[in-house]
Amino acid sequence: MKKIKLKSIALSEISIKDSFWNRYIDLVDEIIIPFLWELINDNVEGAKKSHCIQNFKIASGKEQGEHQGSIFQDTDVSKWLEAVAYSLAKKRNPKIEKMADEAIELIAHAQCEDGYLNTYYTIKGKERWKNLFEGHELYTAGHLIEAAVAYYEATGKAKIMEVACRFADYLCEVFGKEENKIHGYPGHPEIELALVKLYRRTGKKEYLELANYFIRTRGEKPCYFLSEDCIKNKNYHFAEFEDFDLDYCQAHMPLMEQTTAEGHAVRAVYLYSAMADLAYEYQDQDLFLQCEKIWNNIVGKKLYVTGSIGSASYGERFTTDYDLPNNTNYSESCASIGLAMFSSRMFQITRDGKYMDVVENALYNTILAGISMDGRHFFYVNPLEVVPEIAEKNPTMRHIITTRQLWFGVACCPPNIARTLASLGNYIYSLDENIIYVNLFVASKVTAQLGGDCVELEMQANYPVDGEIKVAISLEKSKNKFTVAIRKPGFSNKVLVKVNGQVASFICDKGYIYIEREWEDKDEITISLDVAFRYVHCNPKVRDNIGKVCVMRGPWVYCLEEVDNGEYLSSIVVDTSKEIEEEYDPSLLNGLLCAKLKGKKIDYSEVKPVLYDEGKPQYIEQTFKAIPYCSWNNRGKGEMLVWMKEME
Amino acid sequence: MKKIKLKSIALSEISIKDSFWNRYIDLVDEIIIPFLWELINDNVEGAKKSHCIQNFKIASGKEQGEHQGSIFQDTDVSKWLEAVAYSLAKKRNPKIEKMADEAIELIAHAQCEDGYLNTYYTIKGKERWKNLFEGHELYTAGHLIEAAVAYYEATGKAKIMEVACRFADYLCEVFGKEENKIHGYPGHPEIELALVKLYRRTGKKEYLELANYFIRTRGEKPCYFLSEDCIKNKNYHFAEFEDFDLDYCQAHMPLMEQTTAEGHAVRAVYLYSAMADLAYEYQDQDLFLQCEKIWNNIVGKKLYVTGSIGSASYGERFTTDYDLPNNTNYSESCASIGLAMFSSRMFQITRDGKYMDVVENALYNTILAGISMDGRHFFYVNPLEVVPEIAEKNPTMRHIITTRQLWFGVACCPPNIARTLASLGNYIYSLDENIIYVNLFVASKVTAQLGGDCVELEMQANYPVDGEIKVAISLEKSKNKFTVAIRKPGFSNKVLVKVNGQVASFICDKGYIYIEREWEDKDEITISLDVAFRYVHCNPKVRDNIGKVCVMRGPWVYCLEEVDNGEYLSSIVVDTSKEIEEEYDPSLLNGLLCAKLKGKKIDYSEVKPVLYDEGKPQYIEQTFKAIPYCSWNNRGKGEMLVWMKEME
Repeated sequence: MKKIKLKSIALSEISIKDSFWNRYIDLVDEIIIPFLWELINDNVEGAKKSHCIQNFKIASGKEQGEHQGSIFQDTDVSKWLEAVAYSLAKKRNPKIEKMADEAIELIAHAQCEDGYLNTYYTIKGKERWKNLFEGHELYTAGHLIEAAVAYYEATGKAKIMEVACRFADYLCEVFGKEENKIHGYPGHPEIELALVKLYRRTGKKEYLELANYFIRTRGEKPCYFLSEDCIKNKNYHFAEFEDFDLDYCQAHMPLMEQTTAEGHAVRAVYLYSAMADLAYEYQDQDLFLQCEKIWNNIVGKKLYVTGSIGSASYGERFTTDYDLPNNTNYSESCASIGLAMFSSRMFQITRDGKYMDVVENALYNTILAGISMDGRHFFYVNPLEVVPEIAEKNPTMRHIITTRQLWFGVACCPPNIARTLASLGNYIYSLDENIIYVNLFVASKVTAQLGGDCVELEMQANYPVDGEIKVAISLEKSKNKFTVAIRKPGFSNKVLVKVNGQVASFICDKGYIYIEREWEDKDEITISLDVAFRYVHCNPKVRDNIGKVCVMRGPWVYCLEEVDNGEYLSSIVVDTSKEIEEEYDPSLLNGLLCAKLKGKKIDYSEVKPVLYDEGKPQYIEQTFKAIPYCSWNNRGKGEMLVWMKEME
Repeated sequence: MKKIKLKSIALSEISIKDSFWNRYIDLVDEIIIPFLWELINDNVEGAKKSHCIQNFKIASGKEQGEHQGSIFQDTDVSKWLEAVAYSLAKKRNPKIEKMADEAIELIAHAQCEDGYLNTYYTIKGKERWKNLFEGHELYTAGHLIEAAVAYYEATGKAKIMEVACRFADYLCEVFGKEENKIHGYPGHPEIELALVKLYRRTGKKEYLELANYFIRTRGEKPCYFLSEDCIKNKNYHFAEFEDFDLDYCQAHMPLMEQTTAEGHAVRAVYLYSAMADLAYEYQDQDLFLQCEKIWNNIVGKKLYVTGSIGSASYGERFTTDYDLPNNTNYSESCASIGLAMFSSRMFQITRDGKYMDVVENALYNTILAGISMDGRHFFYVNPLEVVPEIAEKNPTMRHIITTRQLWFGVACCPPNIARTLASLGNYIYSLDENIIYVNLFVASKVTAQLGGDCVELEMQANYPVDGEIKVAISLEKSKNKFTVAIRKPGFSNKVLVKVNGQVASFICDKGYIYIEREWEDKDEITISLDVAFRYVHCNPKVRDNIGKVCVMRGPWVYCLEEVDNGEYLSSIVVDTSKEIEEEYDPSLLNGLLCAKLKGKKIDYSEVKPVLYDEGKPQYIEQTFKAIPYCSWNNRGKGEMLVWMKEME
């Protein structure tokens, strides 16, 4: 852990112009944010009513009625507002800002005298803080605070920050080690990382200390949750919680003793993100080591190749090492977002590229797979293998939805994806003292203070279709000495670095290429990464992937779809001794780089109509077409497969 | 369908002396029946209390207290009593008969004035017949009636028959097409086949007609269940029933329109058994054709190679054609028993050996796998692939128990297995006019009336270890003309038939070898079946078994266990071009014929500690040892695998 962490660059200083990413980012700004506004206002025909805004109207006395929706329904408004904030940070938009201010007005009105804010508890008149295990009050508070900080940073408008600070001040009065305070912590972490953000924005140490209290107290024996009514008297808000042990919410032992990722995946990674924040803020090497151990456990034993986590639907949770089933997994979009949050924090305090490799993997695969290319439909669960008929008729897979939906019962994913895409710039660049880090290869322009001067970097990339990335430097003064650090992804064994067309020397350290020199205006760095298609094997301790391979290109995982390859994808055997051919198909979903694979497939026309016999099936040689996983399910419902059988 | 169905031979006329089967049957008589008596009396330390007998004591006013256990807890007593009956039919045993009479006394006392009998409803004072969808009243009645008929046939004691007839008479008053009667039918079928048994024993046509009414009314629109409070007001006894559609209990359409097996597997096969009974009794060719279509759907598309059914745990149900996952399936022991019941009925009315093939498959694999070799531990769920660590830590598999248990929350399987084993003789032989059918190759003696005379057949067999079966004939008079029909199992392509050592001619029809002649005393038939080990492939429409094989010997399915082959069984690839070697291991579980398979396995010592990379794992050539599936999990907890990867 370094003494000083990397900084983000303000989103207003980054402008993304990337053929791949703008397809999604523009959707967020132009389609998803206005669309989600209509959704939370219940104006979308055919979508399940969210009641989000209506709940705030009722809580603030503007309307009559009952609270509807889930116990944490408010968070959809907060996540939407956070997405709006990042969008406005890049480019003010009066129409959207008006929506946001309208929402903020309502939120402020719904806040109680003492600072408490939660429409579910307020409208229902439920007693506060009596069910920290399941009640989601602190989780909901956390999302509000995150949104407030983002909106203030984007617009400079203080109103929502005042709401957030009043709420946080109130929380500091309620929770803490003092005898007259509650000695609990949230069942669903989120408040911890939010309080750190609020502390960093306001400088108010109490917020950091409360986050620290939550982290340090969690899992202490006897566990606080055991004292609550819901567990003591089996009086659960969510019936299934009766089946869940304390590891479901990472409270089975103190965090200083936890070394493996356990329980509900979203809870886990939100918690680990806060742990990383606090390890840095308190320069606590021991806590940092815990973060490293847990991160290593995820990435070494519990991570899907598509950058997703959560092997089981029941409990939406981690299960055990090397248990990565492809068709019954949960792999929630939000969990991948949380994993990116945790990993990017680890990167910021270590400068180790392996963390950004994971961020990139999550972003280019599961997070993007979460939204349709029209921006209006979302996946919550992200399997690596789907047979629609079976997913629809076998209740073991009842959590698997075979086409993206407009909205969900628990709708955390759409606004969570939106806020992530809207703030993509935060992942692309980071800033150290006199070093600019280029973490992701997304065509964009950035301005930053380096060597006491304002420097502009313009990155040209068509990644990962193309492995060549150009970074052009514009200076205000004629010369400026600083370092450009460019990530060398783990998959790229070869790398060639040129400056102004000449092979340049560089230092490579922990996955970053450091080029330190006295730059001149119009200098251009060219980095050539190896993004050739490659076959990837899984550790054979993962039983579901034994004898299988998947295709990757750069961070992209590829998959087979029924529309290209017919049904029974799992009868395909690819011949990995043959080269993978590239085929750019401009007609496919606005243009896709496809992989053509040689292999064989069972000839189903020859299959006898009996269930068991002594004959081996016949195969036919064939060429198969794979597309990036993030683009699947944009051409109707059908089978999909990531891990393919491999010829011996 | 034939005009006259085959008859069973009284169990008192059959004596089984088989080295394989007596291991289990003797357990039933000597261990399981007395042990289950202790269990239902709550006298077994360490086992979950059943409250079965206690409920009857409370209902009959002998004790005070509340009903405890499930809504259908009474059926455990009935199934136990039925098992006792079959055991006594073979050999009276005063000690056990005393237990049974004691239970009958209690049952009779618990019967209401009007004939109704159900401790749950009586003790709780719940209104009768208000929840046919979930209430299990008719299901519970059915098991009582089955037990009563069996006990009367075994002992001639009328008391329990009187109870059953009073109950059935009452049911005839309550249910039926008349306007003043209830027009419903049970959510869980069972009463239908029980009423047919009662009709066959008593000759009382009303019982048959009520069974017929239940069958003919089922699924008619509007569905009766939709009129009940539980569905109308979402007021469920079992919370999960809210998720279940009408096909869960085969009431989604009239049975005359159903052509596929749907819903809860045990319900389904109990229902189809009754359909077959009624098709025969009413000589209804159309209903028989429905039975055939449904049976073909099961056996052609929904049957595990181990003779089990029910691909999903949630709903314990059929899912869709060719969906046969190996490690998340339900495959309840009771469903295999029900499948054997349905199939043997189809055999009795068709004389087609294909039905007995399925009976044999269920008996030799899943039904036996349901009990441990000590007779004291039971499986409810029977997966074909288990990795204990994953089954225990991934909640998708929370229904999979990794070692047999003493008792279960819903404890239908142990007494159901017991009654099946105790009545095995009913499956071994059947009688036609002047033909004796030998269906299963279980060493035994039988006496039957053939050609107007008493004939004794003595079958010698060590099947399926050995394919040679001898049947010696003893006559009272010197000559007697009748037919011996011996099943030629579907797996045995070759068959050699000799009489007194001379190759004999025979007619083979629908899987039976008919030898008609004038027999002389001491004649001996020898049948040589091909029981050599064989590799069996699954239809590749079953995605989970593509590229895999299993080993069979006769009806036995073999499996690999961790104790013999190490962990990571799914990394084993067998070379099916090499012959399977036999190895008799006398030290293994009282002697087991093992299969030795050549192949290779991943060398885990060479596996790199990363989750994903570009290298292919290394394999080591090895020989593997497989044992019969029915004997698995008798040497401690460990991995188990039926379908093995096959070398290309």
